[in-house]
Amino acid sequence: MTRIVRVAGAQMGPNQRGDRREDILARMIRLLEQAADRGASLVVFPELAFTTFFPRWLLSDDELTHYFERSMPNPAVAPLFTRARELGVGFYVGYAELTPEGQRFNSSMLVAPDGAVVGNYRKVHLPGSEQPRPDSHFQQLEKRYFAYGDLGFQAFRGPKAWQRGIFGMLICNDRRWPEAWRELGLQSMELLCVGYNSAGYDPNGGSSEDATLRTFHAKLAIQANAYMNATFAVAVAKAGNEDGSALIGGSCIVDPNGLILTEATSLDDELIVADCDLDQCLQGKSKMFNFAAHRRPQHYGRITAQVGAIAPA
Amino acid sequence: MTRIVRVAGAQMGPNQRGDRREDILARMIRLLEQAADRGASLVVFPELAFTTFFPRWLLSDDELTHYFERSMPNPAVAPLFTRARELGVGFYVGYAELTPEGQRFNSSMLVAPDGAVVGNYRKVHLPGSEQPRPDSHFQQLEKRYFAYGDLGFQAFRGPKAWQRGIFGMLICNDRRWPEAWRELGLQSMELLCVGYNSAGYDPNGGSSEDATLRTFHAKLAIQANAYMNATFAVAVAKAGNEDGSALIGGSCIVDPNGLILTEATSLDDELIVADCDLDQCLQGKSKMFNFAAHRRPQHYGRITAQVGAIAPA
Repeated sequence: MTRIVRVAGAQMGPNQRGDRREDILARMIRLLEQAADRGASLVVFPELAFTTFFPRWLLSDDELTHYFERSMPNPAVAPLFTRARELGVGFYVGYAELTPEGQRFNSSMLVAPDGAVVGNYRKVHLPGSEQPRPDSHFQQLEKRYFAYGDLGFQAFRGPKAWQRGIFGMLICNDRRWPEAWRELGLQSMELLCVGYNSAGYDPNGGSSEDATLRTFHAKLAIQANAYMNATFAVAVAKAGNEDGSALIGGSCIVDPNGLILTEATSLDDELIVADCDLDQCLQGKSKMFNFAAHRRPQHYGRITAQVGAIAPA
Repeated sequence: MTRIVRVAGAQMGPNQRGDRREDILARMIRLLEQAADRGASLVVFPELAFTTFFPRWLLSDDELTHYFERSMPNPAVAPLFTRARELGVGFYVGYAELTPEGQRFNSSMLVAPDGAVVGNYRKVHLPGSEQPRPDSHFQQLEKRYFAYGDLGFQAFRGPKAWQRGIFGMLICNDRRWPEAWRELGLQSMELLCVGYNSAGYDPNGGSSEDATLRTFHAKLAIQANAYMNATFAVAVAKAGNEDGSALIGGSCIVDPNGLILTEATSLDDELIVADCDLDQCLQGKSKMFNFAAHRRPQHYGRITAQVGAIAPA
């Protein structure tokens, strides 16, 4: 049997701080239309797709508010939702969420081709720091601007147009944490969507990482975790020189063997497309990674019992 | 600061069923001596290094007994232990363990350059099946011949000759399970030793895997899990055509960035050597993979609460 979903990754070039929202929306809709032309029924956009990656600056509350969505959709982003429904294409998109209660999250949502919301996710693994680093030109202040995601890692059953597949969402740094993948793998996930903004240098202040190494890390985490959970994965960057800060590209679609089916070659707006036969997950899920047959949770106690590392004496 | 341990991987070619134990020992000692010549203080041998990979056959109890060690060391393997102590080289070695109580495990041990036992490990993630598959030329009967490891995943503090580093052990299939690595990572592991015998075809009976793909999987799992736990890893195969069954090679030494420092190029006895500066783990352990700062165990509940996958409705 085959259960093919044609999936697109809509890598975006940079969104500059001064870019108008409608211009960014127009670029996203252009990518959406290209995806529809190529027959895709799911398009994955990056993390914080509607704005620049603002956690790189120390901002006042007033400035910060500007980057957040008070509801989804709202008038500023509605054209994307409307056009997607017209074209019969669903999508994953990352955005900054401000709740009615005033909580801020780094969020994503998954929307079906008919416009129905399949699921919501709020980023659990926030990188960076709460306090700005005094001597850094760029900050990484996600821990300051966002609350930790409070929805856990929930997988969602997709609509018929997506072969009733099982879909998971992560955001950026989450993809480096095997616990996040395993939570979704334990729900039989067949396709993971993840958008990211990853600096082409070490945002934590280390000196030994460059864009080549960090692109390697990004792909390595996607390929291995896709393999170890017998799932497809679509990883999509916002890339290029954004407000003077270098973001890696390397968007890719990966199969359950961890093999790259297609990948972006630019640091700009670029669509990648692949057919994902969700039944290809069966081999891994029933043999090598048959969790029911092979996992031994009685020996995994530290994973939930402790947060940080504890070295032997 | 630097804390360099020069480490060797002693990939072995096949051990045929008819090979005499003393001839296998002689090959292992030759690799040990080469490692000493090159200044290594730790040599990693494969899983079940002293014998052929006997779980590929359905064996009688009498035949089976022949492959197990009743104590370690014992006269049949003592020459390796003696020569290692003489040379001042420590080692990891995999072997089939028969306990005084009659339990059988797929085990490994870590021996310091002065001959002291640093630690023992018993394989947790046994692949294959308990019952033979009726139509298969080769079986994978580890679940029949071995009890599941009962020692958990314990990391060990090494001796001064190994820079007092923190060492972990896994065996073969364990390396594909991120839970195993994370258990060790949560003990600040700096260097993982893992030996393997991995078929160059799908031992579970699937048809879509070949030696190239399976070698890719083996390296991918090592590279990504080393990166995600900010640790060095030394992965060592028994390789080649063993009793008519193809075993992959691909032995490698990987750094905390997931980069391959050196790798085997043959399917035969072959030594690979690399300097591992354990302080290179600090970058990852203190920044990107600072577990205390970034892990969120409150959302990892499924990992210990359930064994198999449970799909959404």
